[in-house]
Amino acid sequence: MPSTAFNYEIVEKVAVLSQSGDTAKELNRVSYNGSPAKYDLRSWRRTDGEEKLLKGLTLTDEEARALKEALNSRGDL
Amino acid sequence: MPSTAFNYEIVEKVAVLSQSGDTAKELNRVSYNGSPAKYDLRSWRRTDGEEKLLKGLTLTDEEARALKEALNSRGDL
Repeated sequence: MPSTAFNYEIVEKVAVLSQSGDTAKELNRVSYNGSPAKYDLRSWRRTDGEEKLLKGLTLTDEEARALKEALNSRGDL
Repeated sequence: MPSTAFNYEIVEKVAVLSQSGDTAKELNRVSYNGSPAKYDLRSWRRTDGEEKLLKGLTLTDEEARALKEALNSRGDL
């Protein structure tokens, strides 16, 4: 029976984009289920020593590169 | 009875970060339920003229600015 347990590891904390109470929006490098770490842009809730993944998504290096270029091309940022 | 209908408008298409079949990961400016547009980083599935929002998150301008700086500081991108 394949393991359906879900596990993750924040391999590297890159940046906290914002913090509001016990919820933070972060860019990290995260390894899911033992696979190589990927960029991960997500909100996290941390209360009483418990950490909960909220909305977000992973980005390959190519996607992160394209995102960087897109953000750099924005005059309003 | 407050409206529970959910609506959105892609106000501006900023960048397609990747495309795989009918699913694309995009950075857009999206207005949700008539509120001012925000940056929106999300996967979308478009098939037979139907558009479906998948995993992603919105970013305030401050969060997008912080994300840009974080990505620019990465030597691997």
